[in-house]
Amino acid sequence: MSGAWLEGVAAALDEAGAVIRPYFRAGVATEQKSDESPVTIADRLAEETLRKILAARFPDDGILGEELPPHNEGARRVWVIDPIDGTRAFITGRPSFCTLVGLLEDGVPVFGAIDQPVTGERWLGSSFISRFTGPFGGKMGTRAITDIGQAELSSTSPEMFGPHLPRIDRLKSLCRRIYWGGDAYGYGLLALGQIDIVVECNLKPWDWAAIAPVVEAAGGVITDWSGAKLRLGCDGSVLAAATPALHTAALAALS
Amino acid sequence: MSGAWLEGVAAALDEAGAVIRPYFRAGVATEQKSDESPVTIADRLAEETLRKILAARFPDDGILGEELPPHNEGARRVWVIDPIDGTRAFITGRPSFCTLVGLLEDGVPVFGAIDQPVTGERWLGSSFISRFTGPFGGKMGTRAITDIGQAELSSTSPEMFGPHLPRIDRLKSLCRRIYWGGDAYGYGLLALGQIDIVVECNLKPWDWAAIAPVVEAAGGVITDWSGAKLRLGCDGSVLAAATPALHTAALAALS
Repeated sequence: MSGAWLEGVAAALDEAGAVIRPYFRAGVATEQKSDESPVTIADRLAEETLRKILAARFPDDGILGEELPPHNEGARRVWVIDPIDGTRAFITGRPSFCTLVGLLEDGVPVFGAIDQPVTGERWLGSSFISRFTGPFGGKMGTRAITDIGQAELSSTSPEMFGPHLPRIDRLKSLCRRIYWGGDAYGYGLLALGQIDIVVECNLKPWDWAAIAPVVEAAGGVITDWSGAKLRLGCDGSVLAAATPALHTAALAALS
Repeated sequence: MSGAWLEGVAAALDEAGAVIRPYFRAGVATEQKSDESPVTIADRLAEETLRKILAARFPDDGILGEELPPHNEGARRVWVIDPIDGTRAFITGRPSFCTLVGLLEDGVPVFGAIDQPVTGERWLGSSFISRFTGPFGGKMGTRAITDIGQAELSSTSPEMFGPHLPRIDRLKSLCRRIYWGGDAYGYGLLALGQIDIVVECNLKPWDWAAIAPVVEAAGGVITDWSGAKLRLGCDGSVLAAATPALHTAALAALS
């Protein structure tokens, strides 16, 4: 993985951001997809942009995205992309949606980029890079706390959990506070030591592929709710924590 | 109300922002207040800054703030300030907390400013001004929708509502979507036509004094849950809507 490789990812994110920004707070029409999640023209155009650049730069790799059919799916290395993670945030004018680009090798996430194209914040994580850039401050590194009673918990929305909500309520009762809202941006804030635990479920590969390497590069732990590493075929439950001790305590609360 | 007057408010907000920004994402310690809400050194220092400037510029007026005792409380005109509305957002690194400066005349809000000192977004509202400035786009004006089934609903957190949660669930079931999170920033997004209904309860004067004139200046309607205008002594329930028709429909759902 060379500098030219990172430069390819940066080019894809830069161009996708240029596609997305004119649609932000511009009264974009939304459609409901079959799973009731909203989608906009910005999602579709940004995914086409990401695909075009990644396919040109990495012709042997596969691409898996939220809005369009898989490309070269059997490849060992597959780019997994979500042009606008947090479409609800996007369509309500909140600069907390993110563009996600992850890379799977044999189904396991090995690189992730979280990009906020309106604020200009960008996280990159893998075994060889741990980098955050942005105009509002913050640096990569989870908070070194071990007492769950001191932990700041975050999750996108209680509506996400359905029959699992009592498990979340138990976890919530152990933590210092909860903040609802955030999507992938919450994992970015965990990587900056601002949030200590993020819990979600029903995530798709394009939701988790990019965030897992960012959380790990910052020193955090991220698994499914059984404690297993995220990989293609996992059930989409996600628990990220700032430290192994917090992760163990949160996992116990969820089971 | 002259240009010099608006300039005084801008000076107070500018200086408070300069006080707050160095503490953002900087690992600030938090205390729990008696009502369990968190407070930081940034809250206290920013409130002192706002008070100092407002008291110097408007010596005959009163000041009511979240963190310090009231000043000249019997005055006909009282500035009502919240240095950091959304302290939970602030301490988790989210640039969605706001600095609020409202003005009451005889207990009724007549001017409001919502300021986000990290992103540089600022809303000003009254009978004589309706202005939004910021780097991410957006312009003052609520969305002209009347069908509650099309409405984007927002609220800070379900934990806020206690025994009233079933009323919120009823309202939620009528709207298109809900987005949790946001504090005063949500009212700002309503004023930009991005959100259509915001519902909250247990707000204090420093939470609602600034937002009401901004919502009204953008063409929205804001009252308590009985449909009465917000004023000193109200119960702190708040319902803001993009149009009178939406407000009527939402009020019915809450009662």
